Amino acid sequence: MKRSWPARARAKMALYEVDDLQRDAGQGALTPSAALTARFRSGVSSPVSVLEETFARIDRDEPRVGAFVCQARDAARTAATASAQRWAAGCPLSPLDGIPVAVKDIIETSDMPTGQGSPLWEGFETRRDAASVQALREAGAVIVGKTTTTEFATTELFARTTNPHDPARTPGGSSSGSAAAVGAGFVPIALGSQVVGSTLRPASYCGCYGFKPTFGALNRGGSYDYLSQSCVGLLGASLEDLWLAARTIAKRVGGDPGHPGLSGPDDLPPAVQPTRLALLRTEGWPRATSGARTAFDALVEELRRRGVDVVDEATDPALAGVEQAIADALPLTQKINAWEFRWPLGTYARQDASKLSPVMRRRLSTAEEMTQSDYAQALSQRDAARTVFDNVMQRYDGTITLAATGAAPVGADSTGDPAFNVPASLLGVPAVSLPILQDEGLPLGIQLLAAQGQDAALFAFARWMVSR
Amino acid sequence: MKRSWPARARAKMALYEVDDLQRDAGQGALTPSAALTARFRSGVSSPVSVLEETFARIDRDEPRVGAFVCQARDAARTAATASAQRWAAGCPLSPLDGIPVAVKDIIETSDMPTGQGSPLWEGFETRRDAASVQALREAGAVIVGKTTTTEFATTELFARTTNPHDPARTPGGSSSGSAAAVGAGFVPIALGSQVVGSTLRPASYCGCYGFKPTFGALNRGGSYDYLSQSCVGLLGASLEDLWLAARTIAKRVGGDPGHPGLSGPDDLPPAVQPTRLALLRTEGWPRATSGARTAFDALVEELRRRGVDVVDEATDPALAGVEQAIADALPLTQKINAWEFRWPLGTYARQDASKLSPVMRRRLSTAEEMTQSDYAQALSQRDAARTVFDNVMQRYDGTITLAATGAAPVGADSTGDPAFNVPASLLGVPAVSLPILQDEGLPLGIQLLAAQGQDAALFAFARWMVSR
Repeated sequence: MKRSWPARARAKMALYEVDDLQRDAGQGALTPSAALTARFRSGVSSPVSVLEETFARIDRDEPRVGAFVCQARDAARTAATASAQRWAAGCPLSPLDGIPVAVKDIIETSDMPTGQGSPLWEGFETRRDAASVQALREAGAVIVGKTTTTEFATTELFARTTNPHDPARTPGGSSSGSAAAVGAGFVPIALGSQVVGSTLRPASYCGCYGFKPTFGALNRGGSYDYLSQSCVGLLGASLEDLWLAARTIAKRVGGDPGHPGLSGPDDLPPAVQPTRLALLRTEGWPRATSGARTAFDALVEELRRRGVDVVDEATDPALAGVEQAIADALPLTQKINAWEFRWPLGTYARQDASKLSPVMRRRLSTAEEMTQSDYAQALSQRDAARTVFDNVMQRYDGTITLAATGAAPVGADSTGDPAFNVPASLLGVPAVSLPILQDEGLPLGIQLLAAQGQDAALFAFARWMVSR
Repeated sequence: MKRSWPARARAKMALYEVDDLQRDAGQGALTPSAALTARFRSGVSSPVSVLEETFARIDRDEPRVGAFVCQARDAARTAATASAQRWAAGCPLSPLDGIPVAVKDIIETSDMPTGQGSPLWEGFETRRDAASVQALREAGAVIVGKTTTTEFATTELFARTTNPHDPARTPGGSSSGSAAAVGAGFVPIALGSQVVGSTLRPASYCGCYGFKPTFGALNRGGSYDYLSQSCVGLLGASLEDLWLAARTIAKRVGGDPGHPGLSGPDDLPPAVQPTRLALLRTEGWPRATSGARTAFDALVEELRRRGVDVVDEATDPALAGVEQAIADALPLTQKINAWEFRWPLGTYARQDASKLSPVMRRRLSTAEEMTQSDYAQALSQRDAARTVFDNVMQRYDGTITLAATGAAPVGADSTGDPAFNVPASLLGVPAVSLPILQDEGLPLGIQLLAAQGQDAALFAFARWMVSR
């Protein structure tokens, strides 16, 4: 049942080359939107036939993967037909016109329920699109279905979704279905979210690209994630897919209210070699597998050979300060999230506490023991960590670290360890996961962070890194 | 049909004394929650009988006022019965236990639909409570009904609500029903919202107290107002009602995520005489009625006699800078709001544009002509205005101005001129409207603003002002 994942990486110091991904794409595993629009443009194919191919692939593999909680095939066919007419007339709405997209089931869709991975909300019709979905539809994208999420995009499993590369393993979470749908080659783009590690960890496990933007850079309106670190997250078959989707959203519906929204060129920024990267080991490093560490160290060596100055805390004591500032990232985030979950957990518990998981009920109890001043103190600690990071980032193009502690863990009980992902969430800075490493012959992501608002620069460095 | 509004004010330079209000309260027009809880505590009355009195008053006057879009009488009776048992046992949940509260119909309630003043959303069941409602229920408050709002809390009328003091006049908007419900003496506390002038203007017109907190100070979760200046607003029969309701919300569900939430004592802060107030005339002054100007000038004279240094731009040139910084408050706010309404107006228009008002459809067209950089420029202009205000407020306890250009206008076509209210919204600072002036023998509010986060200090000054 294990899907083929190119095997040459071990011989190359566990580095996974981008041309492997492109070859995969040619084989249909990961097909970037650009490969589809090239076919639309030339008339070789149309959004209608691509959608039917998508459905065929889903029909074949979805019984194993379980990425979707529901699909809107009729509405998608209608949208694809309209898109095909636009392409035939030479006037597509955007580079994503006709591209199949999947949507995490905490994000509202007018034609499908939004269940939030919760028995309390299963089947709930919100009658409108979230901001991100509105923008993608305005750009002509074809929304094919809603993807599985853990309960309220936190930790408890709701649906059984498996890793597309090995059904014995987790796809990660909470954007489980979105990462699995992209990793399985169902869609080139899927919407997720991240408040701890819900986009970048599943991206790493499922072998796709993942993007957690600067806090506030993509409008969360109509997504059931209200937390002060939460972001719309993107999963994609290529860096270009992430960037196009992100700019499509920001151009049309902006960022969160009060934020200017993701800025940068409409197309993927040209590759730029970073001059100086800070190597952050984070609390994840002691928990990383030996395979993951070996792969990471080899990549760092290669970057140095290619002329990048990769610096760690041994060389720059300021980086020790960063490591220290983010050492409590997970407990601090959990504290902040707990308070911010007093609502809506309080009203959900009043409605029917038996439909909340025991973990969620405990989280509500924790929250109820907190006071405003506990929360204010946690916000201060977070602000302090942000200041430390911002100051150090004056001298670096970005930071580099793993995107996960190793390959996706075996078993369905957990969605894996978010230790490597929570710093970017806490700091509110942009981060990408690039599927260019391996562990146990399975995908493993490398993670790049940049300073707040430097999302476009981050993509330029990431592009350079994957296009060696 | 015009309701009695104490007539002695003209003789006192159009000043409306707080003891008039207290006398009114004694007559049942405005009954602060403290008057009710005193009866609960002594056993003279119970939440059950108070609720039935509330219903009787609504049955009598609601055909004229039209404050409610729906009521939840069964659920309210159940809540009142539980509250009565707690009071009888000597263990109320809070000072608001058993107090009837009304909720603006953009704020979610588990037992009533949330219609947003829109034909598109009329009757929509959201199945949960908003954060503010959750907190009030946790404190034992009895939610009696949903109050009218203009379409999406903006400008277009949806329901016919009249001013409780004169049915030929508007109650103001967008929190029309909440202000009318308090002004009519139906409830001592009602939830509203404000992004331009939707709480303080109707408070002024309806003769009740109004509070627009520091941006982010009260959790908006589950309220359909996403804009970057929008706040939960409070309408109350007394200053104490506003403060108790605000602290009840902040203590239990905090502020907006990432904000520490309204801080201060649980009880209304003791009165403090302000040393120095900045008199802001704003763009509203040239549009104010002569009666309103006369009443305002008389109040300023009285404050000076009482020892407050009230300074205007003629004396302090820095205040001319403030007047200039807020001169564009309304068009700037409209620009910001337009962009921030791209979502959800885009998805609403896609759903059924015929159910949007022509004004709303035009607003969407305006928004669609804007770019991210137009919006970013507007945010920068807003930030600049905030900096000017913050700097000047280092030397003042607060600012004083009118809460409306005069008495509620005659007619039902408009909810009145928000010119005096938009500065506090733009600046993100706390503001209260105190019903201590008159114009045309009808209520007119005085408005106090303070620096961001100085909500408790603002209430201390306001308390001093009304307790002369």
